[in-house]
Amino acid sequence: MIKAYAVMEAGGKLEPFEYDPGPLADHDVEIDVEYCGICHSDLSMINNEWGMTKYPFVPGHEVSGKIAAVGKHVSKLKVGDRVGLGWHSSYCNECNTCMEGDHNLCGSAKGTIIGRHGGFADKVRAQAASVVALPDNISSASAGPLFCGGVTVYNPLVQFDIKPTAKVAVIGIGGLGHMALKFLNAWGCEVTAFTSSESKVAQALELGAHNTLSSVDPEALAKAAMSFDLIITTVNVGLDWNAYINTLKPKGRLHFVGAVAEPVKINMFAMMFAQRTISASTVGSPAVIAEMLAFADRHNIEADVEAFDMKDVNAAVDRLENGSPRFRVVLKA
Amino acid sequence: MIKAYAVMEAGGKLEPFEYDPGPLADHDVEIDVEYCGICHSDLSMINNEWGMTKYPFVPGHEVSGKIAAVGKHVSKLKVGDRVGLGWHSSYCNECNTCMEGDHNLCGSAKGTIIGRHGGFADKVRAQAASVVALPDNISSASAGPLFCGGVTVYNPLVQFDIKPTAKVAVIGIGGLGHMALKFLNAWGCEVTAFTSSESKVAQALELGAHNTLSSVDPEALAKAAMSFDLIITTVNVGLDWNAYINTLKPKGRLHFVGAVAEPVKINMFAMMFAQRTISASTVGSPAVIAEMLAFADRHNIEADVEAFDMKDVNAAVDRLENGSPRFRVVLKA
Repeated sequence: MIKAYAVMEAGGKLEPFEYDPGPLADHDVEIDVEYCGICHSDLSMINNEWGMTKYPFVPGHEVSGKIAAVGKHVSKLKVGDRVGLGWHSSYCNECNTCMEGDHNLCGSAKGTIIGRHGGFADKVRAQAASVVALPDNISSASAGPLFCGGVTVYNPLVQFDIKPTAKVAVIGIGGLGHMALKFLNAWGCEVTAFTSSESKVAQALELGAHNTLSSVDPEALAKAAMSFDLIITTVNVGLDWNAYINTLKPKGRLHFVGAVAEPVKINMFAMMFAQRTISASTVGSPAVIAEMLAFADRHNIEADVEAFDMKDVNAAVDRLENGSPRFRVVLKA
Repeated sequence: MIKAYAVMEAGGKLEPFEYDPGPLADHDVEIDVEYCGICHSDLSMINNEWGMTKYPFVPGHEVSGKIAAVGKHVSKLKVGDRVGLGWHSSYCNECNTCMEGDHNLCGSAKGTIIGRHGGFADKVRAQAASVVALPDNISSASAGPLFCGGVTVYNPLVQFDIKPTAKVAVIGIGGLGHMALKFLNAWGCEVTAFTSSESKVAQALELGAHNTLSSVDPEALAKAAMSFDLIITTVNVGLDWNAYINTLKPKGRLHFVGAVAEPVKINMFAMMFAQRTISASTVGSPAVIAEMLAFADRHNIEADVEAFDMKDVNAAVDRLENGSPRFRVVLKA
């Protein structure tokens, strides 16, 4: 039996819940969970905001731990390996997108917490292809958030071939944004953090920003016209997107990794005359995750975490929902 | 004196108009106009839709002709050369975008018909840098439209490194779209034309489309989910953009070359889960125009034109505004 924490209905509290995972599938591994991060999408799923939560629901898709068992066809991992598991827990491994290495875009990819039980537990299972080994220097305590939030902000650098000479800005310095600042700084870019209050300036600079720019001062935004090659936005609320588009250089890109529910309204003239681009993505492939971990290892990049014991999971969820954690909340199994 | 046709007020008719261009500037050339295409942006400027028309206003920015005179610092062109002139008639040639070869994105680039007189005339002047020589096999009658409409649909293929293996669709088979089908076919792509009526199917196939898809049948659109690497939209009206976004493959791009005035409303979830992109551009640099002309020459690509004598310019404008020309209207000087 796997000992987990589940919510029984939309918006419910987490409570102890056991389930029998059955025999281990041939291509799967079982992970002894050491830590599991809490992501905003765990909250969205707890509250059934996307209409696809099945209860009892065990959240958790930023797992770090050790391999406890491997299926009979698993060769890439062995018992005892330190690993992580992120948003996806399996891929079809045979469609075109998988064959091209874009497993995260596979139409049959299964989410770790979509219709199955996640990492708020002592153990979790997943297809070996979706599980990535941890470099020695990345601590288990901080590793989990790299597997969802981390790769979500790292992936655009790879996908769009961002150069170390690029000027890049980040909107939203929270769970995702703080890792974006660290990655971009190590990537060699000139990094600007959009900040909503004076109090966050020093923090942003410490995390790797070279500059900050007030996101609540329309004049500051206007003065930054034609400044950035790339803006990564991590927020999930509507902003004056056209004001940000105007801060892009010719050929600049506004990239969304935050799940903005309301329609994003774009002034196409401002896009056209400067040949600008808007794009969006989530997470990344296992190959990109592995590359990111090696890069993070070499550059000493870790998520900044606040750890709670897993038995205090409801306090941890409350901290993310109503506090301002710096920056990612993780549960210690 | 240059003998031109001008409108004297917003929405006015074109009438004979003469002006003295003064001495020829050192870096400029004077072109004996042979033909000049009529573009929708000429109509927008005639009617002052963009609030920047100065009257008397001489339209025309799809010029073909012969060099009649060169300024004293011009070396790339000589009297008698067959040339074309498009949307831009000069660049600063020293800003970063110019230095990087993206002259069309230069913040100081001057439009051929913005605050100066265009090609509905016997002569027109422009900076030599903005004028490109015509390959021998491209007829003067059909060349003009390549310099604005043509490069507008060709440029994305270069900017976004579109592969000959790509599946590409075109929305709007008119002045721009018919050239897009020809270029894409020659580029090696699998080409689909979105058509609004059964009567246009044969025409689209003749122009280079391999397939057609009804743009007015929501079911046909829904069935085409995940089909295209690139969609180029040439229309200037609002469509159900999210329905088209759903026809993009993972990593697909919806690219706007039509000037859509109303805000384009984007469902960011459909963008995110398949890592899709939206972008927009206008025209292209002189270097891209020269490359396009060589490609068009090698592949026998010409604009399909209906020619009017320049003295019948008002009938020609009416044909574009109220008829369905196949596909570009040009004036013979």
